[in-house]
Amino acid sequence: MEKQRIAVLGPGSWGTALAQVLAENGHVVTIWGNKPEQIKEINEQHTNRHYLPNLKMDSGIRAEQSLEVAIDQADVVLFVLPTKAIRSVAHEFNQIVKNKPHIVHASKGLEQGTHKRISEVLAEEIAPNNREEIVVLSGPSHAEEVSVHDITTITAASREQEAAQYVQALFMNDYFRIYTNTDVIGVETGAALKNIIAIGAGALAGLGFGDDAKAAIMTRGLAEISRLGVAMGANPLTFIGLSGVGDLIVTCTSVHSRNWRAGNLLGKGHSLDEVLENMGMVVEGVATTKAAKELAALLHVEMPITESIYQVLYEGKDIHQAARDIMLREGKVENEFSIE
Amino acid sequence: MEKQRIAVLGPGSWGTALAQVLAENGHVVTIWGNKPEQIKEINEQHTNRHYLPNLKMDSGIRAEQSLEVAIDQADVVLFVLPTKAIRSVAHEFNQIVKNKPHIVHASKGLEQGTHKRISEVLAEEIAPNNREEIVVLSGPSHAEEVSVHDITTITAASREQEAAQYVQALFMNDYFRIYTNTDVIGVETGAALKNIIAIGAGALAGLGFGDDAKAAIMTRGLAEISRLGVAMGANPLTFIGLSGVGDLIVTCTSVHSRNWRAGNLLGKGHSLDEVLENMGMVVEGVATTKAAKELAALLHVEMPITESIYQVLYEGKDIHQAARDIMLREGKVENEFSIE
Repeated sequence: MEKQRIAVLGPGSWGTALAQVLAENGHVVTIWGNKPEQIKEINEQHTNRHYLPNLKMDSGIRAEQSLEVAIDQADVVLFVLPTKAIRSVAHEFNQIVKNKPHIVHASKGLEQGTHKRISEVLAEEIAPNNREEIVVLSGPSHAEEVSVHDITTITAASREQEAAQYVQALFMNDYFRIYTNTDVIGVETGAALKNIIAIGAGALAGLGFGDDAKAAIMTRGLAEISRLGVAMGANPLTFIGLSGVGDLIVTCTSVHSRNWRAGNLLGKGHSLDEVLENMGMVVEGVATTKAAKELAALLHVEMPITESIYQVLYEGKDIHQAARDIMLREGKVENEFSIE
Repeated sequence: MEKQRIAVLGPGSWGTALAQVLAENGHVVTIWGNKPEQIKEINEQHTNRHYLPNLKMDSGIRAEQSLEVAIDQADVVLFVLPTKAIRSVAHEFNQIVKNKPHIVHASKGLEQGTHKRISEVLAEEIAPNNREEIVVLSGPSHAEEVSVHDITTITAASREQEAAQYVQALFMNDYFRIYTNTDVIGVETGAALKNIIAIGAGALAGLGFGDDAKAAIMTRGLAEISRLGVAMGANPLTFIGLSGVGDLIVTCTSVHSRNWRAGNLLGKGHSLDEVLENMGMVVEGVATTKAAKELAALLHVEMPITESIYQVLYEGKDIHQAARDIMLREGKVENEFSIE
């Protein structure tokens, strides 16, 4: 593949790790952010210590505070922003973009209020003549592992197979492996909703539950994620894939996961305010729990685990009682949705 | 539920833990085994230290060396034997049984040579007029956790929903939660085949791979397990359930899993002989890898992870090379089977 010009919007852990992969693959990478000190650190010291303390970044990666400069002549614009920032940045992008770049996003959430998926928000804000088909990048991956070349395998999903294959070629190398998929809805809902279950799995561990309980909440959690995803239009089999169960596994069983860590602190008795302050980064699962709870009500989908976590996060429910409610539901029949 | 008389065939870790659950639920439990010292230990000291060192067994549990005495007047006969012992014990049982008990099994493997599932072997050996419908008990569970009342959630599967519900009622209590399912093929293949992937996940960890690689082998492993299961007649959605991904999670991410530990030792450079000697218990996944590899060839199913693990276990392939082969396959399209 020829050298591409890529603008990475969002200098957090994941944006930085993806920028590094792209630079190592020979592409010309600009990271856009709005904190002058961070921009300076990246450009002068080639580090981003708050997010990836051990990474020495490729010296070809340039950081830029002007969105207009960052996206100038970009072949690809990669959104790796917190969910709540996507709409406003996409809106601004649409007003200043001069060419027709590929749009990729690697964010994991649902918009508050509208409950929309990230690609829906991007499609609403960016006019079709200002972009190629949108591609979602998602799967079991920790920025910390990718940045040290631990082998990582993820999914590039787009309604257009060709667009997904373009993004596959962009990122693919010896340690970063990309599978393509056309089920954008399934990939995005799996990515967003697994963070809810990660909070729950972390909380159970914090409360002292064991590995059997962890496997149970992950499995029953996957079932309710899949139910909501299918009600939103996803292919149920996507949830068996990298962006479904794969991402769920890595988020619920790895020490790197901030949603799991947030739940773990809650389980150990800390308040939500204390936890969010302690993390110092966005914990997407907290907002996603609210969006999913509202969506489940609108679409008449039963999500008992999400409901219990919502009550703990937003209604002050006792976390011991919530854990008992989740684990001790009456046994019943598996496979709530069937193949027709 | 009224008190039932239950014979548990197999005094290993899992048989002992299940016997304890049943005794705590008020049933009359006899464990059958063939080692005189172990029988004596259970009857006199109410312990089974080689398998569950920390468990004080219910003093009502009786151990018995005669199969005829153990199954006399039993309402339920629960097979928890190594896969290779199932056929001969079922054959003997069929010749001496006098009533028509419920048959339950909690073994996880495929018969060598015939590649048959456990319930198929049981159905072949035990005449229909000597038994009620066969029920499979399977899911994410460690004997060590169940025996200390950590909450555990598993599946009871039978072609007859009523038989599954009977077993659900038998085992259900505050810490042991049972869901029913009618997909016997899916539940049995998930239970057997996940042990192959656990060996692989343990080997990757032993070789120094990280959490992203673990999630990747588990997800791609689930895909190939599902492919073989579907070719054998399973419902693909069963693999999203407790006996599929649930059991896969607990087996690949818990320190209690002997298949994972066996793989981990292989990854650290020990020979298969050393590993099996070190374990001191049956490692079902080693034999299952061979059966699955042969079945995959017969049914024309692609199972690259199983194939690589087979080559390491049976053909002396270098484990570093096998790991690279597994992790670095060309990226391609997800979802190898689709919903029709």
